[in-house]
Amino acid sequence: MTTRQDCVVRDRHDPLAPLREQFHLPDGVIYLDGNSLGVRPKATTERMQQVLHDEWGTDLIRSWNTAGWIHLPQRVGNKIARLVGAGENELVVADSTSVNLYKVLSAAARIQRERDPQRRAILSERSNFPTDLYIAESLCKELGWTLRLLEADEVESHLGPEVAVLMLTQVNYRTGRMFDMARLTAAAHAAGVLAVWDLCHSAGAVPVDLKGADADFAIGCGYKYLNGGPGAPAFVWVHPRHADAFSQPLSGWMGHAAPFEFIPHYQPAPGIARYLCGTPPILSMAALECGVDTVLAAEAHGGMAALRAKSVELTELFAQLVEERCAGHGLSVVSPRDAAQRGSQVCLTRSEGGYAIVQALIARGVIGDFRAGDSQMPDILRFGFTPLYTRYVDVWDAVEHLREVMESGEWQRPEFNRRHAVT
Amino acid sequence: MTTRQDCVVRDRHDPLAPLREQFHLPDGVIYLDGNSLGVRPKATTERMQQVLHDEWGTDLIRSWNTAGWIHLPQRVGNKIARLVGAGENELVVADSTSVNLYKVLSAAARIQRERDPQRRAILSERSNFPTDLYIAESLCKELGWTLRLLEADEVESHLGPEVAVLMLTQVNYRTGRMFDMARLTAAAHAAGVLAVWDLCHSAGAVPVDLKGADADFAIGCGYKYLNGGPGAPAFVWVHPRHADAFSQPLSGWMGHAAPFEFIPHYQPAPGIARYLCGTPPILSMAALECGVDTVLAAEAHGGMAALRAKSVELTELFAQLVEERCAGHGLSVVSPRDAAQRGSQVCLTRSEGGYAIVQALIARGVIGDFRAGDSQMPDILRFGFTPLYTRYVDVWDAVEHLREVMESGEWQRPEFNRRHAVT
Repeated sequence: MTTRQDCVVRDRHDPLAPLREQFHLPDGVIYLDGNSLGVRPKATTERMQQVLHDEWGTDLIRSWNTAGWIHLPQRVGNKIARLVGAGENELVVADSTSVNLYKVLSAAARIQRERDPQRRAILSERSNFPTDLYIAESLCKELGWTLRLLEADEVESHLGPEVAVLMLTQVNYRTGRMFDMARLTAAAHAAGVLAVWDLCHSAGAVPVDLKGADADFAIGCGYKYLNGGPGAPAFVWVHPRHADAFSQPLSGWMGHAAPFEFIPHYQPAPGIARYLCGTPPILSMAALECGVDTVLAAEAHGGMAALRAKSVELTELFAQLVEERCAGHGLSVVSPRDAAQRGSQVCLTRSEGGYAIVQALIARGVIGDFRAGDSQMPDILRFGFTPLYTRYVDVWDAVEHLREVMESGEWQRPEFNRRHAVT
Repeated sequence: MTTRQDCVVRDRHDPLAPLREQFHLPDGVIYLDGNSLGVRPKATTERMQQVLHDEWGTDLIRSWNTAGWIHLPQRVGNKIARLVGAGENELVVADSTSVNLYKVLSAAARIQRERDPQRRAILSERSNFPTDLYIAESLCKELGWTLRLLEADEVESHLGPEVAVLMLTQVNYRTGRMFDMARLTAAAHAAGVLAVWDLCHSAGAVPVDLKGADADFAIGCGYKYLNGGPGAPAFVWVHPRHADAFSQPLSGWMGHAAPFEFIPHYQPAPGIARYLCGTPPILSMAALECGVDTVLAAEAHGGMAALRAKSVELTELFAQLVEERCAGHGLSVVSPRDAAQRGSQVCLTRSEGGYAIVQALIARGVIGDFRAGDSQMPDILRFGFTPLYTRYVDVWDAVEHLREVMESGEWQRPEFNRRHAVT
């Protein structure tokens, strides 16, 4: 049986442990929600001061040149590219995940309408993150296409001649289940289908090899494992074989070949820059860069492979400890127990009380979140493990809190059933 | 003849003068580029510290509820609404101007396709800001519509039965020429055309009365006269008669009726909230709120009417002093000399050397910008006057610098012809 002392020892020998020093971690908190909002890097405060005081405050409009604001989407994009197996100048930071998904789905649809107009369906997972489904639903409505939603296991066998686009989130936001990107992409291509990947729960959490997997399009989020801050801008990647093919519909001036020539007709910039749209939010983008840098700091310690190895150990430990120490309380692990099929989170379920259990844990400083189920999906108690700043002893302590919450019946207190606007 | 001392006296008697104290204005700078990037409010630094340290840093994910992050798009939107004649809960902050324009143009197009499918043109001004034209061009391509670009004077007479949407920027970014929103909207409606207004150079600069003018849709920018910071999020307003009509294509989860129920099908939120899309960039949005507050602070001093009165005096003074004191140097005022047709900027032109003259002024700390012309439009030396922080004496001094730059021939130095990425 694992003991708390074992966890202390593992932390002591963890070569990634110093990376935790990059972050401001509030006292008394075990933060297992980095898959929803990553914690604040210490460097972000100073960088924001610099942007506010020197760049915006003093140099003002000149900072577009002198501070390189105009290059931020590419500069930060190139850093993220290193984390997801994309090449230099293939990925930019822009807008939100939802907006970027609209761009790439539109692009994929345009390709397929030229190649094979009979393909008129987007295939996705029923429990994909809702914003992905909403954007796809909207685009399908515009195009007269169909959005087909399947269970994860059914996806591969439904890649047929009527399917235009396969749109998947690599790591499911509810269960943490991870698709094999290379395999699904190959299956999609074999069936003439383009593969669009959402990396929201992958970037900075698991090794991603977009080029190796031969993916077509990818988008992802800056505020989860990339620690970019609340609502940080998102990113978009397009395989070079598609990037110059045509312009996406959100053809704003930042994606123009010569934005500062102010010519009245749109001429898309070469390559991925045409996926930019409006003026980027510099404050949020500067913060994102600090967050990405905290992940790149792992490159000196083995990079994403080392982070992944620790992440697997953390999630494995959590699942194992819950099963050992919280047995008999109706909790079960719904994330895959095979680490190869699991992202950096572990989800539990319980027939009732899931919301209140999460609230009771939060009151104790153990922060996870709750995702309600429906007739087809169970309620989810969701715990994310960011290997950059989560310790083995945090895992132990979190499970102890969970055990105490269950054994004491504490979660049944009425206050833990009060609903919040955001869950 | 006006003297510098006259300007000093006018500043002394200016009831709006105390509003300047809200801003961090760098030493040695006369900033006449608030129409490109507003200066930093002093309050923004402290507010950003609070967001970084307390909200993100300490309360982390809980701040969506406890700090009200989830309500920021509406809260800041309601503040901007007061500046543009919109009602409570009719305007939200979201995305960029370009993205918001895509939403409202799509919405307007959907309305017209139902009402009168023969209307298949968007009408705009040839010298409208390029991103507006690019977005409209892209949408027209998707819809099989035409984008018709006209000179400002020609617009009204071309509102015919084949026109679906009139898309205008109220104050032209190049010349500062201001359309009469009520008149053009009435003319559009009389012709069965919907009116979409871009308020980028209006919000916080001139009084706007969206409801009074009976406009259909409006969008605008947070980083110019609203002082929201570089690339601050933009805003979008839809007249209540249209807001519930249908969903716009960028149907992200933040515009869903119940985003935190995570249901797989899109149900648009009632009213303007359906114009939200992805997760908003909180850092940039918090900064925007501080900027908007600096404009609302004028409410105690007569509000937008008082700001407008001062703006007219500033621009009038600048134009007059340039004509008086810089005569014989080939400079002419291209902004309308009738204040009623002019926004809060004055633009000059010269047959050559415009770029270098602006650079020479910047080197002296007088910051305006340059917009290149083409065969149909003259080069523009652009000077914006934000009445919140621009003094009469700044206007005098700026013109003196211009006079010296011209008289000395200083602008002809080679270094002032070096081009920058961003102009």
